[in-house]
Parts: sequence; structure tokens; C-alpha cells
Amino acid sequence: MKVTVWNEFRHEKEDAAVAAVYPNGIHETIAAFLKEAGHETKTAVLDEPEHGLTEEVLAETDVLVWWGHKVHEEVSEEVAERVKQRVLDGMGLVVLHSAHFSKVFKKLMGTGCDLKWREADEKERLWVVDPTHPITEGLGEYIELEKEEMYGEHFDIPTPDELIFISWFEGGEVFRSGATFKRGRGKIFYFRPGHETYPTYHNEEIQKVIQNGVKWAANTNTPKHVYGNRQPLEKLSK
Amino acid sequence: MKVTVWNEFRHEKEDAAVAAVYPNGIHETIAAFLKEAGHETKTAVLDEPEHGLTEEVLAETDVLVWWGHKVHEEVSEEVAERVKQRVLDGMGLVVLHSAHFSKVFKKLMGTGCDLKWREADEKERLWVVDPTHPITEGLGEYIELEKEEMYGEHFDIPTPDELIFISWFEGGEVFRSGATFKRGRGKIFYFRPGHETYPTYHNEEIQKVIQNGVKWAANTNTPKHVYGNRQPLEKLSK
Amino acid sequence: MKVTVWNEFRHEKEDAAVAAVYPNGIHETIAAFLKEAGHETKTAVLDEPEHGLTEEVLAETDVLVWWGHKVHEEVSEEVAERVKQRVLDGMGLVVLHSAHFSKVFKKLMGTGCDLKWREADEKERLWVVDPTHPITEGLGEYIELEKEEMYGEHFDIPTPDELIFISWFEGGEVFRSGATFKRGRGKIFYFRPGHETYPTYHNEEIQKVIQNGVKWAANTNTPKHVYGNRQPLEKLSK
Amino acid sequence: MKVTVWNEFRHEKEDAAVAAVYPNGIHETIAAFLKEAGHETKTAVLDEPEHGLTEEVLAETDVLVWWGHKVHEEVSEEVAERVKQRVLDGMGLVVLHSAHFSKVFKKLMGTGCDLKWREADEKERLWVVDPTHPITEGLGEYIELEKEEMYGEHFDIPTPDELIFISWFEGGEVFRSGATFKRGRGKIFYFRPGHETYPTYHNEEIQKVIQNGVKWAANTNTPKHVYGNRQPLEKLSK
Repeated sequence: MKVTVWNEFRHEKEDAAVAAVYPNGIHETIAAFLKEAGHETKTAVLDEPEHGLTEEVLAETDVLVWWGHKVHEEVSEEVAERVKQRVLDGMGLVVLHSAHFSKVFKKLMGTGCDLKWREADEKERLWVVDPTHPITEGLGEYIELEKEEMYGEHFDIPTPDELIFISWFEGGEVFRSGATFKRGRGKIFYFRPGHETYPTYHNEEIQKVIQNGVKWAANTNTPKHVYGNRQPLEKLSK
Repeated sequence: MKVTVWNEFRHEKEDAAVAAVYPNGIHETIAAFLKEAGHETKTAVLDEPEHGLTEEVLAETDVLVWWGHKVHEEVSEEVAERVKQRVLDGMGLVVLHSAHFSKVFKKLMGTGCDLKWREADEKERLWVVDPTHPITEGLGEYIELEKEEMYGEHFDIPTPDELIFISWFEGGEVFRSGATFKRGRGKIFYFRPGHETYPTYHNEEIQKVIQNGVKWAANTNTPKHVYGNRQPLEKLSK
Repeated sequence: MKVTVWNEFRHEKEDAAVAAVYPNGIHETIAAFLKEAGHETKTAVLDEPEHGLTEEVLAETDVLVWWGHKVHEEVSEEVAERVKQRVLDGMGLVVLHSAHFSKVFKKLMGTGCDLKWREADEKERLWVVDPTHPITEGLGEYIELEKEEMYGEHFDIPTPDELIFISWFEGGEVFRSGATFKRGRGKIFYFRPGHETYPTYHNEEIQKVIQNGVKWAANTNTPKHVYGNRQPLEKLSK
Repeated sequence: MKVTVWNEFRHEKEDAAVAAVYPNGIHETIAAFLKEAGHETKTAVLDEPEHGLTEEVLAETDVLVWWGHKVHEEVSEEVAERVKQRVLDGMGLVVLHSAHFSKVFKKLMGTGCDLKWREADEKERLWVVDPTHPITEGLGEYIELEKEEMYGEHFDIPTPDELIFISWFEGGEVFRSGATFKRGRGKIFYFRPGHETYPTYHNEEIQKVIQNGVKWAANTNTPKHVYGNRQPLEKLSK
């Protein structure tokens, strides 16, 4: 399976606190544990030509992982639309944390994708609420993160096709933290944790979920439908 | 309840066969039976300024009914986006027949919304598959239409929140003909029948479904969420 | 609309602390605010003949509200099966708190319906996660209960048709506290709060939710399907 | 993966027409193509002790395939309950054709599971409506069966978690022919075709779907939740 990990890659260059946690960028940390899982993994970042997401790169990508935060609007309309179309054509998409506000995710959801948030070094506990789902493979009942950014309901997304994790936050909020969506021939997994100032992507359970999510999101040679004007398959009576 | 029925209103002026079925336009036929159901009902058409859908009109609309077909692209980006936002803010939306390809519906779905189609005067039978749903109030097991345009699967929409009708077509296809979606605070009902050359909107069962759909789609003073940065509701431990 | 409120009515007679909160029984408290909402409301309790749920009573009930806790097994198999069948035939069912373990709910769900629990006078906050749903009419973003029993995930139910509330608990758990299910022609609303030692059913917001839930659960003359061997509706080719 | 194929195995011994199509029983035909798919596959039939489904057999079964039709009531309550519990504990279940009326399926669904039917050698066409689903791997847009028994809506099941196939029948009906359900830790796939007098299980596309379904239904070491009374994970304020 071929995976591309996309990252804005700005925080890491502009904020020493972030660089301390992810010295080579969040994308390299994620790519490393996806390679360990056996996937052929590349990276792409915002400041490359076409944000590193040319037609060729996308055509060769089975699953795209997306991390973005501070400059969603710098992603060109053309590339955002291209990525959306590639998802509808069957590419898997794993949307991480603040990428809830990315152009690609918003286009695919059709909603505002807004939420409550707070940076207060508080505890998050992600409870598994779907113990049949392959994305929960190898986990316990919950994942605990000592410090994370808070995201709170209401999360303005369509009803997920599957709800996998619900987060508890110390400050009194809850959040639908793991959710899947089908769009066209593509499968999408949104996973909440991963604020840039915390070592969340170094956490082995979080890594396991993202590895599982990538595996789940890959298309498996499912039907390609033909659309438009069609002749009848049966003899009409008239 | 305040309802606005929107129509392209082009076929009726350009095609005698359509004018024969809907002399005052599809919108007037629909508006008439919605008035009978007790709703304060207005109409709006493409060729009015801002397509008849100003901020004021939308602010005063609880449920918008949409019929469009041949010139979806003539709806301005601005108005399409305005209608979408109003749905997210709580306006109900009933999307009829070929409006599956309208800008508004595609923006709210996030998918291509394509399908198979054929104009061959063939029989359609819409089976009720959700006998709990208020949209099916007063119906029998199915609705039969002697002649309709065929729409066939795959219908490229997200998984509906509720699937209410499945159509059988004489030529060998099936279609998810009645489906609901929630987006933001808004409720959306897609209902398939209604090709412009057939007297479908004069059919009493079809009228009943659209009356039920409008009633169902209206928002009932549900919560308005606040988004953005929030203080904790509980004392944090750190 | 005709509503029947069913209660075990044992705690109130055996435990002074419960009697202090619900001197006439939980059923009378609930019945009172449902009458205020305009419904013709009766009560039935475990120790009546046939638990007060004869064929006649059920035939005259549009929506049944169920509260039970300590002696679920004393409900006869015959009555439990009768109630289940009446739900499948179109009676609405509102299942409260510890009735998650009632025979009727377990039969309708097909799962174990187990959960985590703790009685520790802790705070519960129920967040609205579906701001389109009529059951949330008139509410704010969340409901706060100063003291309640904790119920925690995993809640062993099928995926709800709609998820309306998610609870946050002081002790670190979350719970899917408001959920709907369709079974046959019947609609079911499960609502978590209501431990017998707390004044939860005296809370106006909780009352509003149950009033809304009863209204939502009532069947609206939807189709009655015929099953079994059927002649073809179309001429077969053979 | 360890698969057990269960069959009533009565039609094949009592009806020459059935024996002509499945001389060794439907279970042996199904087991053969599951072995080809690489699964360690055993069979069990009604007339074995405990219907061949002892605690030991079930403990060693990752996915159970079930075919039954004429004597569902001969399956003992004890074994039906045992199979249900094993599904809730994580065993996959593939329910074929007339097994919609099996005790196990009805217990897991909580509904009547009834439908319309007709034996008239008519054509069935199963349309893929979820082109993301691994159960559709390797298929085209639809599967066509020249002669099958008709099953028609309304199919009295809970809303499926996923709807994969919708059937068109020559006689005018439609049917939700491929659907998935999650119950406890178990995954269930219902697949409609397979009347005993037709060579449906010799059809390569049907075989592919069942192979895919077995693969999909297997549990992948997902979390085992603990239920009951629990200590708080956080310090309570009182």
C-alpha cells in the first residue's frame, strides 16, 4: 500500500516549542511509524510546488494522511478540489486533529466543521465505543493522554457512518474523536488528537490507531460505477 | 410555517409538452398543495433578481423546496452558498428529482451526486422501507407511477441518515428515492420523482409525501451551539 | 395522544430516601408532567395483575414510558413479549435510566445492554450532539445535573439510529445518553438520567426531554406492510 | 481464520430437485469455496448432537455461516442462545437467504425479520449501492441471477449499519439484499440469495461475495470491555 503524509510544516519551523517535539516535522514522525507498519510511505508539504500533491502523486497514493492548522486558506482551491476528487475516486483519507478545518475535509463534509477548543494542558481520555471496528485493533478500553488541546461538542459534521471514539476532557467537555465517513468510492477517518505542542504522535497507542486507520481506509478494488444515460436492461412494455 | 418553493421555470416556457402539464410552472403546482396543507407558501424562480432568494426571503423561510434541471450552473455561486448556509443555520430543504445535481445539494453532500438515467416512459414503483417515518404518513406499501424518468444506482451520495423509499424501475434498475440527511441545524429530504414531462406532482400520493417532507424538515427550536475558544466548565487539576 | 407510564414501584416503598424524593412513585412524577404536556396519561406498575399491561391497556397506548431497576426478572416473559410485539406494531417506547436492563429493551436490542456504573453523587453534563432533533427542542447546549449515578461506556447496544446526547461524568467516563432506535413500526428513545435517589425527574430540562421524546415516539399512521407469499405485480417473462 | 458452515441439511435429503443441485448439501458447496479462499473450514448440521455447535466448536470458530429454511424451530433454544452469545463475544456471522427467519438472527435483530416471498423462477439483479465496502471487492456494478426466489420489502429488520446491495426482481419488488449489523463485539452480514432449488452457490460472483463477507466479519483483536461497578478514574470533588 502506498501512503502519502501531508503536513503544513509551518509550526515546526516557526515555533521552537513545536520543533522540540517534532524536529523534522509532524509528517516525518507519522511517516516513520507508517513505514514500520509496512507501507510504502512518502511525505508532501504545503510549500512544495502544488503543495506536493500533483496529479501524479495522488494517482500513486492509496491513502493520504492530512495534518494542517494555521494556514488552511493557503492550500489552493485547485489542489483542494483535486484531492477531494481523488477521494471520491477511491483514495483513502485520514484527517488528523485541526485538519477538521481543512478545505478538503470541509468540501467532503458539506458542513461548517466547527467545534469548541481550548489550550490548557488538560487530560483527554478517548473511550472506544465501537468494539467491532478494525481501527480499534490491539487497543484497550480507552486511550489516556495526559495533556492535549480540548475539542468540544458540538462538532459540526454530518452524522458519521461509524462512531469509534468519544473523548472525555478534564474541563467538562466531550467530543466525537474517531469517526468514519464514506464519500464516493473513498473512505475517510477523522481522528482528533495531535496538537502540535504535545508529543501525541509519539504515543504508541495513537500510532496504532493511525496505522489501523490507514489500513482500513485503503480501497480494495471495489466496483466503479458508470453514470449517465443508459439503455434498459429489461424489455420495456410500452 | 413558512415555505418557499423554488423552480428554474425554464422548461415550462420553452417546451410546449411541459407547459401542457404545468401551465403555471412546477412551482405553482407544488405551492398550491402546500398551501392546502396549511403552510404560508411563496415561490421564487431563477430569473428573478438574486433568483428570488435574497437574505430577507431566506430569513423568512422555514422550509425551502427546490426543483431545478437544465441550468443548474446559472444559479450564482453567491446564492448557492447563501442557501447552503441558511440550511446549516436551520432551514429545512426538500430537494426534488433532478435537483440532485443542483449546486446547493452538491455542496451539502460533498459528493458528485451522479446517477444513471433514461427517459423511456417506464413504470416506477416506490417501496416504503422505513414504516416508522412521519414522511410515510398516510401511505400504503408503495406508490406506483405509470410513467416516469428512470434514475438508477449507483446514486453518488453519502450514506443517508434515513432511507425511506427504494424505487423499482421496469427497465431493471433500483434507486434510493427517498432519503434524509442532517447538516448543521438543518434537515434535508431528497425525493426522486418529478420529471417535467409527467404529471407526477398532480399525483395525490406524491403530494402527500412532499407535504409530509416539508413538515418533517422544519426546525423546532433546537439548540444553537457556540463555537470557538471556551473557558473550562470544571476546575483543571494543573 | 395516549401515554402509559410504567414503573417497578418497589424502591419507593422500601427505601425512605427514595420515597422522600418520589413520595407517590416515579411514575406519578413522570405522569404529571406528561399530562401538563397535554397527553392523556395513565400509569401501570409491576404489582398489578399482568403488571398493569394487559392487551387492552397496550392497545390503547400510543407511547409507553418504562422505568425499572431492581427486579427486571419479575416481569413475566409473557408480558415482556407482549410489549415487544406492541412496539413492533407501532407503539412508541421511552426507556429510562436503569431500564436499559429491562427484558423489553434487551429483546428489542438483541445485545447485552450492559455498561459501567457507580453511585457517587457525581456531576453529569449531557451535551447535545444532534441539534436538528425535535427531542432537543427548547434546550440549550447541554443539561447539567449536580448529582447522578454514573453510567459509562462501553454501552452494549446496537449502533443507534440517532445519537442525541453524550454525557460527561466527573469521574472520567462518557456515555451515549440519548439515542433512538427503530424496530418494526415502533420508535424507541433511550434516555439515561433518573437514578431513584436523585430529584432528576423534577428537573425541568429533563422533563422537557421526556415530553419531547414521547411526542417524537408516537406513530403517525405510517404504512402497515403485508408479509408472506405474494403474487407478482408485473408479468413474468417465462 | 477458522470458519464453520452450518446447514439444516434436510431439503437435500428429502427433495431430489435440491439434491441434484447440491448433492453433498449446501454446506459442502459453501465450505469448498471458503477453503479455496484459504480458510480452515468445517461444517456442522442440524441433526448432529447439539446441532454440531458445541461450546468447543464455537470457541474455535472465527466466523459462522448459517443456512436454514424449513425447520428453524428444531434448533434448540439452548444452542440458539449459545450462538447469539458467541456472536456478541466477537464471532462473525454470515446469514444466508432464508436464515433471515432463524432463531439466531431474530434474537440478534430484535424484530420479526419477515418479508414478502415468491417462488417463480424470476430474474434477480443485485445492485451495489456501497462502492467503498470490502464485501464488494472484485465485483461489477451488479450481479445478475437468471432464476431465484423473490424476497420483497418490507424486510422487517432494524436499520442496517451498512446497506451494500439492493435487489431488483422481475415481478416488481425490491429488497435490501446485502446488509451489515454490529452486535456486541460481533459483526453480522446478511446476504439474500441462495434458494435451495437454484445453483446460486455455484455462481462465482455469489461465491466471491460470501468469501468477502467471511473475511469482513472476522474480529481483529478489538477491545474487550469490562462492565459493572467501577471506581472513578478521576478524583471526585465532593
